Amino acid sequence: MARHPLEILSVEETARARDVILGLHPDKVVDFREIFLKEPAKVELKRFLHLEHSARLSPTSPRPARLAKCQYDVIGTDKIPEYHESWVDVENGRRVHHEIIGKQHHAALTLSEFDTLVDVCKASPEFQKAVAEFNIPEGFEVVVEPWPYGGLDLEDENRRYFQGLIFAQDTRSGNPDSNFYAYPFPLIPIMDAHNREIIRIDRLATGGKGDSITGKTHNKAVIDHCTTSEYVPELLPNGTRKDLKALNVVQPDGPSFKVSNESLVEWQKWRFRVSFNPREGAVLHDVHYDGRSVLYRMSISEMTVPYADARPPFQRKQAFDFGDGGAGNCANNLALGCDCLGVIKYFDGVIVEADGEAKVLPNVICLHEQDNGIGWKHTNWRTGRAVVVRSRELVVQFIITLANYEYVFAYKLDQAGGITLEVRATGIVSVVNIDPGKTSDYGNVVNPGALAQNHQHIFCARIDPAIDGHENTVIQEESHSVPMNPTTNPRGNFYEVRQTPIKQSTWADAAPQHNRIFKIVNPSKTNRISGKPVGYKFTPPATQLLLADPNSVQSQRAAFAQHHVWVSKYKDDELYAGGRFTMQSRKEVDGVADAVARNDDVENNDVVVWSVFGLTHNPRVEDWPVMPADIFQVMIRPADFFEANPSIDVPSNKNLSSIEVQKSEKASCCGMQKL
Amino acid sequence: MARHPLEILSVEETARARDVILGLHPDKVVDFREIFLKEPAKVELKRFLHLEHSARLSPTSPRPARLAKCQYDVIGTDKIPEYHESWVDVENGRRVHHEIIGKQHHAALTLSEFDTLVDVCKASPEFQKAVAEFNIPEGFEVVVEPWPYGGLDLEDENRRYFQGLIFAQDTRSGNPDSNFYAYPFPLIPIMDAHNREIIRIDRLATGGKGDSITGKTHNKAVIDHCTTSEYVPELLPNGTRKDLKALNVVQPDGPSFKVSNESLVEWQKWRFRVSFNPREGAVLHDVHYDGRSVLYRMSISEMTVPYADARPPFQRKQAFDFGDGGAGNCANNLALGCDCLGVIKYFDGVIVEADGEAKVLPNVICLHEQDNGIGWKHTNWRTGRAVVVRSRELVVQFIITLANYEYVFAYKLDQAGGITLEVRATGIVSVVNIDPGKTSDYGNVVNPGALAQNHQHIFCARIDPAIDGHENTVIQEESHSVPMNPTTNPRGNFYEVRQTPIKQSTWADAAPQHNRIFKIVNPSKTNRISGKPVGYKFTPPATQLLLADPNSVQSQRAAFAQHHVWVSKYKDDELYAGGRFTMQSRKEVDGVADAVARNDDVENNDVVVWSVFGLTHNPRVEDWPVMPADIFQVMIRPADFFEANPSIDVPSNKNLSSIEVQKSEKASCCGMQKL
Repeated sequence: MARHPLEILSVEETARARDVILGLHPDKVVDFREIFLKEPAKVELKRFLHLEHSARLSPTSPRPARLAKCQYDVIGTDKIPEYHESWVDVENGRRVHHEIIGKQHHAALTLSEFDTLVDVCKASPEFQKAVAEFNIPEGFEVVVEPWPYGGLDLEDENRRYFQGLIFAQDTRSGNPDSNFYAYPFPLIPIMDAHNREIIRIDRLATGGKGDSITGKTHNKAVIDHCTTSEYVPELLPNGTRKDLKALNVVQPDGPSFKVSNESLVEWQKWRFRVSFNPREGAVLHDVHYDGRSVLYRMSISEMTVPYADARPPFQRKQAFDFGDGGAGNCANNLALGCDCLGVIKYFDGVIVEADGEAKVLPNVICLHEQDNGIGWKHTNWRTGRAVVVRSRELVVQFIITLANYEYVFAYKLDQAGGITLEVRATGIVSVVNIDPGKTSDYGNVVNPGALAQNHQHIFCARIDPAIDGHENTVIQEESHSVPMNPTTNPRGNFYEVRQTPIKQSTWADAAPQHNRIFKIVNPSKTNRISGKPVGYKFTPPATQLLLADPNSVQSQRAAFAQHHVWVSKYKDDELYAGGRFTMQSRKEVDGVADAVARNDDVENNDVVVWSVFGLTHNPRVEDWPVMPADIFQVMIRPADFFEANPSIDVPSNKNLSSIEVQKSEKASCCGMQKL
Repeated sequence: MARHPLEILSVEETARARDVILGLHPDKVVDFREIFLKEPAKVELKRFLHLEHSARLSPTSPRPARLAKCQYDVIGTDKIPEYHESWVDVENGRRVHHEIIGKQHHAALTLSEFDTLVDVCKASPEFQKAVAEFNIPEGFEVVVEPWPYGGLDLEDENRRYFQGLIFAQDTRSGNPDSNFYAYPFPLIPIMDAHNREIIRIDRLATGGKGDSITGKTHNKAVIDHCTTSEYVPELLPNGTRKDLKALNVVQPDGPSFKVSNESLVEWQKWRFRVSFNPREGAVLHDVHYDGRSVLYRMSISEMTVPYADARPPFQRKQAFDFGDGGAGNCANNLALGCDCLGVIKYFDGVIVEADGEAKVLPNVICLHEQDNGIGWKHTNWRTGRAVVVRSRELVVQFIITLANYEYVFAYKLDQAGGITLEVRATGIVSVVNIDPGKTSDYGNVVNPGALAQNHQHIFCARIDPAIDGHENTVIQEESHSVPMNPTTNPRGNFYEVRQTPIKQSTWADAAPQHNRIFKIVNPSKTNRISGKPVGYKFTPPATQLLLADPNSVQSQRAAFAQHHVWVSKYKDDELYAGGRFTMQSRKEVDGVADAVARNDDVENNDVVVWSVFGLTHNPRVEDWPVMPADIFQVMIRPADFFEANPSIDVPSNKNLSSIEVQKSEKASCCGMQKL
């Protein structure tokens, strides 16, 4: 059976694409970076999906080609690789597109480049000498934490660089997971990735308030005041707490969802496809509720994490976890009973090694149901009759690790037609060394000698709606006070709801003081009850936007992070808010800001909505050594899409497994329950 | 054993207080409204709690008196009741305080007054005549939905009024829970509660856009175009959905919490008391984590729901659910397996009948644990070792019904020292009649003939902190961009964190564009790690404030709803943001605005923080017939209160009851799991 156009490339398809590429570059060394599905052009996929949904798909129906997007370095005699992107039709083995990327751009990193940095540092006499300037206590070993180089400074040559943050690890316990971040060294080695050479070692300041912004430390005893701070349970000095009883989620009849053809998910009137790619991680496609189209595609498009320590070279601490690292590349292999509870379906990804060997990346997405408390309730006080319906959610989750930080991304669908995008930020805050007893304007001391620098996390979700079809309009809606007046507001209680359709591609910001929301409607389809166009709405979270000076490199390369909402006209392959290439960028190119700058007509058109939200993270001591997850949600809700609450038919059955703690003085002891 | 000063009055104590009051008014009819614990003055309670916490409490220790706050009408020969409040020492049977409330104020309503309105309407020929002007289909009966009268208009005499919204119920099914809200009548009868007379019947407009603001309908066929819309499962035309499988929360070893002395809760290093009163519902007291004081008291103080339909008399649709109705009075009796899952402890309340008879109100608060997903996670990519800790929450929940609406209030405590206040708004949106085919500037048509009017819900939580002691300071903190400059921001990436301590009682608004947060700190206690004062912080949700014209009655009586944060100096009994008396008020008196107007010194002082948040609710069709819960949260989090993440010692054990759906094409069918 032919694979569905939205299914990820299989290991076999990936291998075939690799072979085609190798055949096309016979005389060169080819280092593969990624091979993954190049999604079909929308015009083709729409045609296919239309046939599929109307049950008219036959073996002879036209199908979009299965294309592999192959990203690879071609290495010639000068050792400087050329970065290529080719699209290969894996069915007929033909290349249909080929592009040599200009040297002004850099490919996303691969984890093997991280390994290279570690190796090169270890082998570098210059680096060893720099480290040796400082005391390293008996039993400690130096750890190199690779980072992307960040935005190029004006004086930087545009070579491919990596930087390493340096820490020392206490190896005396023999536990390789002892938390080295507690011992930061004031050094950052810079590697030229092509020559595999340390080209420079940046010396860091370790001062505090009032100290020079350009000072560098030469204090030998730089980590002597740092102290151990562990998070793996076996290294906690007092072990783990003992009084937490088990809480199990049990689904005796199995899950309510059904997964078929590897990617098609059906659950509680929802039907969608899930895919996975190395850049965006999990993506939802072709999302329907009760047979009606809601979204064409939904993804996390980009994020950036700029650091605010004014002392150079910290301006180059600015990760683009999707563009630099690839959220899919950095996805965790999820584990049963750890990352979610209940009955869980895992999805695998496929990645390639440098030689193009395809490999299954197991359990990169998990799918499960969860209870989210009361969904709706009404008690008729006359009769005492209460109807309570619980809200069940279906969660599509993936988790990424980039060096110290983790992000938990989840698409949550509910029975009332709502879609919630949730991000949890956790992991270890990035710290640098600070002298004993000092405090800093640039962050908070979270452990002796460890300054957690202030930073922001700014995310961008890409929502490609298809509200009962592909021609949609985005309406900005606000609620405004109206001065009391005899004609329209005699008692002063009236407020006005103002709607402004967005006609041309543009940005907008959150305005919670006006209850600014955005409705995505299908102007050609009217809700029979309300007489208004069918739609979905969302309230942009009014989180702080990028704080860096607009002329700074941090800011220039993250234009997407400067507005809450972007509305663009759909264009094939325009998926990445920060642009296709973010590594070492000095400016966002072909990102969402450029997309809206086309001033396209977006009224009653194929529109894409980008939602930007985030967190200004001035760390607390409580964020150390691993931070409790900070949770952010974007809620996308039907607004006159349905003719009533779509969850009104959810059963309100009593859950029979719940148990009451006995009510009596004696019941105070926690064991005493009616069992 | 003596009862703890924070335990609610027992049935016996309540009965004793009633007897004392009856003895003091021997010649009069006394109608009781409420009898509940008058909490001790803080100076006395602090002394007691200090002894308790330092384990120095003995049978001879001084204890605050057990006082009963008795609210009652004293009815003389003129039938106009006088409203009294007395405090009775229930141990020695003495009245310690007595106040006759001025006629400018009105007592909160009791549900028996609602019953009276229904009876009076039924008996009123004038009302029957008004109803008879309209067609009432065969098998339909008129339903009177009692409401508080709302803010008095200038022309209103200050008598005690109630208003009724009128609907028709289809009785043909014989089901008393058939949804009558689908058939709204354009009439509002007004009752004088003392005379038990209908004094006026307001006629309502049923027009739409462009129709006169003062028009009244005289169309006989006013509900002929309305249609049935049910929510009780047995009346749903297609029944309930069949494909939702059970999801059970099972705690085989019982709960992790312990409840003793009826009110003391201990769970995961938290220790607090929970109480219940007819006005505020559930209240938390004396909240400690790991032996350290965090809060003295936390409650939901008030809420208001103003409606925005410009057509008189809809300006009088403005409920104060806490001040008018009493959140405790309106609390649901919670049911096992419906309102929460797992192992549940229920708390009872005590209320009085009009004759002062004390009655147990069963299951008004529930306490249970729930899983809230990943609490923290870090994967060491070098070793592949992931440590994942789930976040367990303890939930103290109560639910109120006021006529059509329900609110689910929950205090959620977590293992990382966080406290989240959650409000869910659900129930049935308030609708009025609208002519066929019309739409309106005042709301949305959610069912044929039913216009759901635009409105707001604005809540106020009262947080009485005790961060390691009672002398605390509130600091407003913001993060600001700094222009690039060679001295302090050479690369433009720096942003500045600005702190402004609040010195005098005042209000403040949310400013998410500046990441404005509020820290409540103990300036006398320094975090050993960061060198900063220990504290807790919260981000005021930047929800829209009250929209009514500042000179309107709606606005004047809800000053609290006009700012996001209020900081006042603690004063005994100053608990109610909208003032002690909200029924029919034309102006907020002795509410939080008056409290801050004292310009008290609040720096390093006994400070109270009030957090205002809410929802501008322009209804969707999907909010009908019962709306999916809208969820709001205020997150209160430690900020340098602890010396590390307090949940770092939570076990990261794998949950062994989770089950994987098999990975294979065949596994697509939902029954196929590894069991």
